Amino acid sequence: MADDDRGETLADLGEFTVIDRLVEGRLHAPIVLVGPGDDAAVVTAGDGRIVVSTDMLVEGRHFRLDWSTPHDVGRKAIAQNAADIEAMGATTTAFVVAFGAPGATLGDDALRLSDGLWDEARTFGASIVGGDLVAAPQWVISVTALGDLEGRVPVLLGGARPGDLVAVIGDLGRSAAGYALWLKDIHDFDGLRRSHLVPAVPYGQGRMAADAGATAMTDVSDGLLADVRHLADASAVGVDLLREALAADHGAVAGAATATGEDPWAWVLGGGEDHALVATFPGAVPDGWRTVGRVVEGPARVLVDGAEWTGDTGWQSF
Amino acid sequence: MADDDRGETLADLGEFTVIDRLVEGRLHAPIVLVGPGDDAAVVTAGDGRIVVSTDMLVEGRHFRLDWSTPHDVGRKAIAQNAADIEAMGATTTAFVVAFGAPGATLGDDALRLSDGLWDEARTFGASIVGGDLVAAPQWVISVTALGDLEGRVPVLLGGARPGDLVAVIGDLGRSAAGYALWLKDIHDFDGLRRSHLVPAVPYGQGRMAADAGATAMTDVSDGLLADVRHLADASAVGVDLLREALAADHGAVAGAATATGEDPWAWVLGGGEDHALVATFPGAVPDGWRTVGRVVEGPARVLVDGAEWTGDTGWQSF
Repeated sequence: MADDDRGETLADLGEFTVIDRLVEGRLHAPIVLVGPGDDAAVVTAGDGRIVVSTDMLVEGRHFRLDWSTPHDVGRKAIAQNAADIEAMGATTTAFVVAFGAPGATLGDDALRLSDGLWDEARTFGASIVGGDLVAAPQWVISVTALGDLEGRVPVLLGGARPGDLVAVIGDLGRSAAGYALWLKDIHDFDGLRRSHLVPAVPYGQGRMAADAGATAMTDVSDGLLADVRHLADASAVGVDLLREALAADHGAVAGAATATGEDPWAWVLGGGEDHALVATFPGAVPDGWRTVGRVVEGPARVLVDGAEWTGDTGWQSF
Repeated sequence: MADDDRGETLADLGEFTVIDRLVEGRLHAPIVLVGPGDDAAVVTAGDGRIVVSTDMLVEGRHFRLDWSTPHDVGRKAIAQNAADIEAMGATTTAFVVAFGAPGATLGDDALRLSDGLWDEARTFGASIVGGDLVAAPQWVISVTALGDLEGRVPVLLGGARPGDLVAVIGDLGRSAAGYALWLKDIHDFDGLRRSHLVPAVPYGQGRMAADAGATAMTDVSDGLLADVRHLADASAVGVDLLREALAADHGAVAGAATATGEDPWAWVLGGGEDHALVATFPGAVPDGWRTVGRVVEGPARVLVDGAEWTGDTGWQSF
C-alpha cells in the first residue's frame, strides 16, 4: 500500500506485479510465437535473417521528465530504434525493452511509459515481446529492435557511388529547434517543441527506398552532416548538399531561430534526433523523397553548396 | 589528450573513437551477415524463428566496481542473458549491448568490459553484433541475446506435468554465498567469491534438455524456490523438492555459511544469480543433470521435503 495519495510506487508493488500490469491485455502481432512471461520470447524471422539494433536513453541526458511525459519517452524510445531498422531497408517487427527506475517511481508512470512504447510500435504493426525491470538511480530505457528484410538485400552505409542522387524523407532541424525552445523556456512553436519530445519517423520509407534501388542509407540521428559523413566515409565518396533543396526545412524552423537567436542552418544541417532517412539513389528518387544533393568522387567528405561547412555539425555523446 | 596519467577517458576520446576501439579486430561467427558499424546488424535466423531476451545491469545494484573488474562485469552480463536463451532450449548466437557510463570512465576500462563480453560469448561461439554507447551517471549495461532453436519446440515454463522429475544442472547457492562473503569482507572461499562476480552457466545444456524431452525449463536467476514457483504457477502444478538431493550444493557453501553466520539452505534454496538450469522431464534425466524433486498435482506451489519452506526465497528488484 502507498503511504500517501501519490499512488503506488514500483517499490510498493514489487517487480512481478508491475510486470504483470505492463504486459496485461497487450495484443501481439501474429509473428510473436512466444510473448512476455517466459525466459525469452520467440519471434518469426520470415526470410531466415533478423535485423537487430539497440539504443539506450538516460534520463537527464536523452530526455527530461519535466519536459516529456512518460508516454512521450516511450514513444521516442521506440521511434529512434525503429529508425535504425528502417535505415537498413527492413520492417520493424518486435522490440524488447529494459527499464531501470528508482523504487519511488509511480507504477502508473511505468504503465504510461509502456503505453507510449506500445502506441508507437502499433503504428507500424510491431509488438513489445519482452523486457526487464530493474532498480536504477534514474530512468534508463534500453530498447532493442528486431526487423525483417523480407528477402531484400540490406541497404548499408557503404554502397553510395559517384553520380547517385542524395535524397531525404522526414524532418530535419525540428528536434534541435524544439530543444532550443525548451531550453530557453519559449512556449510558442508547439509543433517544434513536440518534435523534440517525439520524433516523426517516416515509417515504411526505408523499405520503399530499398525497393527503389537505394545504394546506401542511414537515419539522421546525429545531424545531417554527421550522418552523411558516416555514409561518405563508408562509401569512400564525397557528397555535395544543396541548401536550396533544404529551404522547406529552413523555413519550418526560421521563426524559432529568430525567437531564440540561433542559426536555423545549424539546426537543419547539424541537428539530430529527428530520425529522417537519407539515402542515395542511382536513378529516380521515390515519391515523397526530396533530392538534397549528389554523390561525387572521393575523398570522403561532405560539402554544402560546394564548400566545407564551418558551422555546427551535431551532437557528441560525451 | 588526457590531462593526467590515468589514461584517456570516454570524454577525451569521444563516442566514435571509443566504438572504433571496442569493435576493432573482433572475429565474428559466420552467422553474422552485417556486423557493427552500420545502422543495424543482420544475423541469420536458421529455422525462421529467433529467440530474444534482454537484461539490464546497473552499477551499485547488480555489480560493484570495487568488487568486479570491468572484465568480470562483461562476462556476467553475457552469462545471465545467455542463460535465458538456454532455458528455452536454444543456442545463443548473437548479442547487442548498450553501455552507459560517465564521461570520466577510462577508455581502457570500456575496452576491458568489451573484452569480458567477448570472452564469455566466445566460449559458446556467439558474437557481439552491435551496440550503443551513451553518457550516464553510473555504469549501466543492457544486453539483448538472440538464439536459434535449430528446429526445436521452445521449452516453456508451463509444460510441467504431475509425475515429471525435476532436475538441475549448474550451481546453486554459490553466488549468494559469495555475496555474503564480499559484504562481510571475508577473503577466504575464493571460488565462491568469484562465483558471485561471474556465474558458471551450463552452456549447451538447455539444448540437451530440450532434446531429452524437457516439458518445462527455466534458469535460476531469482533463486531455486522463486524460479520453480514461476514454473509451477505457469504449469498449474505442485513441485516437491528434496533437500537430500541438494546435499552437494549445501556442502559447497556450508563452510562459508559458518564463517558468515548465515543459513546455507537459504542460499541453496533462495539464492539467485548462479543461472543453473532447472527443468522437468517425463522420463530419464539427461547425463550430468541431478534429480532434485518431482512434479505433483496442483495447486501451484513449491514444497521442500513435503512442507512449505519458511526461510528466505530470493531477491526482489525493488
